[in-house]
Amino acid sequence: MDNLGLMQVYTGNGKGKTTAAIGLAVRARGQNKSVAFIQFLKCRENYGETKILEQIGCKVQCFGSKGFIIKGHIKQEDIDLAKSGLKAAQEALSVYDIVILDEINNALDFGLLSESEVVRVLADRREGCEVVLTGRGATAALLAVADLVTEMQEIKHPYQSGIGARRGIEY
Amino acid sequence: MDNLGLMQVYTGNGKGKTTAAIGLAVRARGQNKSVAFIQFLKCRENYGETKILEQIGCKVQCFGSKGFIIKGHIKQEDIDLAKSGLKAAQEALSVYDIVILDEINNALDFGLLSESEVVRVLADRREGCEVVLTGRGATAALLAVADLVTEMQEIKHPYQSGIGARRGIEY
Repeated sequence: MDNLGLMQVYTGNGKGKTTAAIGLAVRARGQNKSVAFIQFLKCRENYGETKILEQIGCKVQCFGSKGFIIKGHIKQEDIDLAKSGLKAAQEALSVYDIVILDEINNALDFGLLSESEVVRVLADRREGCEVVLTGRGATAALLAVADLVTEMQEIKHPYQSGIGARRGIEY
Repeated sequence: MDNLGLMQVYTGNGKGKTTAAIGLAVRARGQNKSVAFIQFLKCRENYGETKILEQIGCKVQCFGSKGFIIKGHIKQEDIDLAKSGLKAAQEALSVYDIVILDEINNALDFGLLSESEVVRVLADRREGCEVVLTGRGATAALLAVADLVTEMQEIKHPYQSGIGARRGIEY
């Protein structure tokens, strides 16, 4: 049974949101579905996942600046990049079987995109297009229209013991 | 910074545990780490993820029967398969950079493996070997020795509206 077309959200402060989306992309490609992976906020050109996702036939597009984004100190460049990302999302949502909007929740949380605009773009997707949203701070309006919501809760984390981001694991 | 060698656990009743592990495998392969993906309980030969994981160079081994396992109605075959899986895990934990033991938490929860045996095998892994355990019902002893624990919590699920497992998404 295919029956695609739902809206999935992965949110919360725990690990596994982006990796779950990558896993969904892998599974979908294994069943010959077309997949677009659109990344907000971060520029992951050197990330381990990007080259493999492209290698297995996903369309990967990144819309993030190189630097960190700090809430309350948003630059126009960050807003412009997020808007370009949403435009790319709108196009992908009319073409691909599965569209992953990685970290779009954070982009909304940071105020780079308007909630009503995002909800409208999602609602206008073609029938049978499954959309997956990841990132902390999913807004109430997104949760209301989502079909499937999972919250990743951090129970225990090694950063507490002073371990930073590790190549091959966190990126 | 590489700094591998931790023990990660993904548990809870929400979606995204196995897909997060698949995503970790993809990321690790993208950074040229060696990855073993060992699956307990399920036989996912036809699953979308299996062929892609093999294609990108992961070692994939499945130790599950074709049928469903019902708690309290465990067959000897299920126990034997889980024990073979643990043996394969022990070998992989002395060789690979990242070893994923998919659904091993459920195998423990079902009583197919003994907790003390699993904890011993995990503790004996080679230095620098990152191990990832997935599945519902992670036991207290595993959570105690884990470095990183994430609980996937189901907030909203479409099965409530009568939608079953979908090809390219759930398998």
